[in-house]
Amino acid sequence: MAPVACALLVFSTHASTASGVPSALVSRALGWANTNGVQMSPQPGSFVHAPLSLSPFPLSADGFARARALAPIFNELVEAVASDPEWLLGVLEATLESDPFTGRLARVLREATRAGPEAQPLHLGIHRSDYMLDEPARADGGGYEPARLLQIELNTIASSFGCLSARISQLHAYVCAVAPADVAAVLDGPAAAELAAGAELPSNAALEMLPDALAAAHAAYIAQVAGAPSAGAPPAGAPPVVVFVVQPGERNVADQRLLELALWERHGVQAVRCTLAELAAGAQLRDGPAHPNGSPRPCLWVGGREVAVAYFRAGYSPDDYPTEAEWAARLAIERSAAVKCPTVAYQLAGTKKVQQVLAEPGALERFVPSAEHAAALRATFAGLFSLQTDDEYEAALRLTRADEDGYVLKPQREGGGNNIYGRDAAARLAAMRAGEREGYILMERIRPRARRLALARNNEACITEAVCELGVFGVFLGGGGQPALLNRAAGHLLRAKPLGTDEGGVAAGFAVLSSPLLERGI
Amino acid sequence: MAPVACALLVFSTHASTASGVPSALVSRALGWANTNGVQMSPQPGSFVHAPLSLSPFPLSADGFARARALAPIFNELVEAVASDPEWLLGVLEATLESDPFTGRLARVLREATRAGPEAQPLHLGIHRSDYMLDEPARADGGGYEPARLLQIELNTIASSFGCLSARISQLHAYVCAVAPADVAAVLDGPAAAELAAGAELPSNAALEMLPDALAAAHAAYIAQVAGAPSAGAPPAGAPPVVVFVVQPGERNVADQRLLELALWERHGVQAVRCTLAELAAGAQLRDGPAHPNGSPRPCLWVGGREVAVAYFRAGYSPDDYPTEAEWAARLAIERSAAVKCPTVAYQLAGTKKVQQVLAEPGALERFVPSAEHAAALRATFAGLFSLQTDDEYEAALRLTRADEDGYVLKPQREGGGNNIYGRDAAARLAAMRAGEREGYILMERIRPRARRLALARNNEACITEAVCELGVFGVFLGGGGQPALLNRAAGHLLRAKPLGTDEGGVAAGFAVLSSPLLERGI
Repeated sequence: MAPVACALLVFSTHASTASGVPSALVSRALGWANTNGVQMSPQPGSFVHAPLSLSPFPLSADGFARARALAPIFNELVEAVASDPEWLLGVLEATLESDPFTGRLARVLREATRAGPEAQPLHLGIHRSDYMLDEPARADGGGYEPARLLQIELNTIASSFGCLSARISQLHAYVCAVAPADVAAVLDGPAAAELAAGAELPSNAALEMLPDALAAAHAAYIAQVAGAPSAGAPPAGAPPVVVFVVQPGERNVADQRLLELALWERHGVQAVRCTLAELAAGAQLRDGPAHPNGSPRPCLWVGGREVAVAYFRAGYSPDDYPTEAEWAARLAIERSAAVKCPTVAYQLAGTKKVQQVLAEPGALERFVPSAEHAAALRATFAGLFSLQTDDEYEAALRLTRADEDGYVLKPQREGGGNNIYGRDAAARLAAMRAGEREGYILMERIRPRARRLALARNNEACITEAVCELGVFGVFLGGGGQPALLNRAAGHLLRAKPLGTDEGGVAAGFAVLSSPLLERGI
Repeated sequence: MAPVACALLVFSTHASTASGVPSALVSRALGWANTNGVQMSPQPGSFVHAPLSLSPFPLSADGFARARALAPIFNELVEAVASDPEWLLGVLEATLESDPFTGRLARVLREATRAGPEAQPLHLGIHRSDYMLDEPARADGGGYEPARLLQIELNTIASSFGCLSARISQLHAYVCAVAPADVAAVLDGPAAAELAAGAELPSNAALEMLPDALAAAHAAYIAQVAGAPSAGAPPAGAPPVVVFVVQPGERNVADQRLLELALWERHGVQAVRCTLAELAAGAQLRDGPAHPNGSPRPCLWVGGREVAVAYFRAGYSPDDYPTEAEWAARLAIERSAAVKCPTVAYQLAGTKKVQQVLAEPGALERFVPSAEHAAALRATFAGLFSLQTDDEYEAALRLTRADEDGYVLKPQREGGGNNIYGRDAAARLAAMRAGEREGYILMERIRPRARRLALARNNEACITEAVCELGVFGVFLGGGGQPALLNRAAGHLLRAKPLGTDEGGVAAGFAVLSSPLLERGI
């Protein structure tokens, strides 16, 4: 064959975007993400890739293992706190005026408690405990102080990103296998060396364990009804469903759909998505077969289907209750025989105020009988400071004056995006009126170690310095003083935050989804 | 427990959209689609669900089986036609002036043929033969005439939607299992009865067989190089890749990504996406180890990687070749030792002109030695009429005058969206200048049976009457007069087209992706 006439140039092996990220890595990562549902929905029906890191993020293997081991202990703590509504309501008493939302939730709890024993003794917890590793650079300039695993918060309602995180772990395993040189090129030296030496990319079981937990609650509900003395023949028609209580126009719908579809594929259990407004308009309580002790069983029905499990991916923000109708729906669900994930008591057990009170000397020990467990939890508590009394407020002012950049001001209510950091926190604290103080707690600011990170957001890639926040999911099914049916860690979430970005929310656009590259220190 | 105070209304069991489609069916179908990559990309990086039917579409089980059985025979026909470039170029001779694009492809074939024997004796075919069932209503008003399976066209380049179609089959299996009543509500009576009686939703193997075909070609290429007399030690570095030759800003990128990822997951074979312009700028031919007969092996390289397979998802339209550089890239690929899917000869064997000539008496028999096979193919040929000579043109004019709505005017070149139907075809034909005629063929118009269809497009659902077009994929690996390494049917595509929509393109927005509900006539 004659030589080919057309002179063609050669690609550079590592063609890069303007940002220095290999363009093949961006293309492969985003191609995988979009093909596998790793997307956000900025408008209903329209999708873009979720903000994500293009490679796994280095994380201490020891810190990761310690955080996972704490999950069942935190699960039991939440159950114990929620089982003591008097203590819970007492602790929250002082914040009720400054935080009307928490006050209203406490009112739902009081009303439900006053009505009599729980119609459903089982509680389903899908919690996520979020941590950072406090690892400040050593004062002498040589390396870093030994890492402390510090809890940021414990999410007891609508803990999200489990399923998307499991997909991100798969995505990173894919790019590390298909394009190892491109991945190594965007990591810093120590992380690249760990990767080359075979560092573990731990699998993330959230995509199995979260649906399995919902299915376990569903199965327990059906077993209760089948075992009821007045049950008679099993009801004809379609089996009970799991209701996903969702926000209208949810951006993070992909994470929820992955869970819904895994619940169907793994267990044949159907889910139905409803907003609180739709439940207010369409849900109904009907008397089901009585409990073995003869007490009534008010069953929740929606769209002609009995509800076995009410799984909240909404309801954690005042915006979710624009009218009294949504509060009425929440109360009806709370009073129903459906298994709630979470109950109002579980939700209140996750408030910042409870976190802060549990950090006080002796408080934790009330709920955690094992001294070893209590010590393990307490070791993760950063300095938490109440602003409730004048003395506490004055003490907090002194702390922030001594180290202006060293603290975070956190509102009691959930949802992210409202924390105030460093100098802003000090200024806000100083300007605070007496009535406002109970709505906040002050927390020691954590100094994680920054690492090199390649990320993609809005179809653009860049390389930056970032820190990470590890969330560990825990699933719990139990209550009524009986041994738990389910209590274990259930996957994880690793968010990477570019330096200078203080908020951790992925949905809010501040952070990107990542996965751990476990470093053992080679 | 006290009766619950809040009076909540009950959802209607089958809440419907304004269009009459159950809203739960729309939500489940689109949720599944978006979670599983069944999307189009209207702008790069932005995704919406692919246009799709919300339920499977009724199709004759017998017609489906017959179409599948034809795939290996069409595969062999393409190989036989492509192996006779003199015949092929002779047939196309008359169309070259009126269709410069086909003319240019023929020139590439001539140049490649003149240069000597093929550098790669193996050809990979991923064809899709498209059919409709001609099933006109009986003149006496009682039912339908016996169905004829008629071929619309044979796609030999960039046959698309195989992987998305496999996903649609999974989607329809899901909605039929999770919401059977909703699905039955949108089907017409006979289809609902077949579904209730357990009608088959055939699985679609495209998501396995298409990547398996690319992997087989990749493996054959590597075996050739390893077996070459001058090969010596295997080359160091990364293994050869499959290049996906793609259009810039491809809308149907999800279908391609599914294939790319399945190729990696099933076979560990890497794909690289390049436009013809990128190949023009970055590809290179390098002498590889010689063939066993001593002839040179010009290996294709791109981005530092040897190319085992060049898989075209572009190159079928004049728009894909805006400058001479793209033509030079196509010629270089054609001359290279990479396995082409397809070769230029394969592409030309799929032109309408070849389809029309093969329909002439005796032509098919030149390439199909088995009389039984030839008869089976010929039975699917609708009336095809050349416009090449004055006599043929006058005969065509007479046909369209006698039945103004009974014909379609089809341009020779590929890509869809350019056919002219019914009265428009008759008018266009009458106004045609002599030089234009060779660029078209006239085809008998097919009268498929219309059925009720619920579809979703742009996040809106509606119910309409529709007809369907069945595409059957065939994969073939062979050539050089040797027995084929691979020759089989490889999944299918069912497009449903609302009545009054004459074009079949899904990407162009005229049709929706569906899957067959096989009717046996209960």
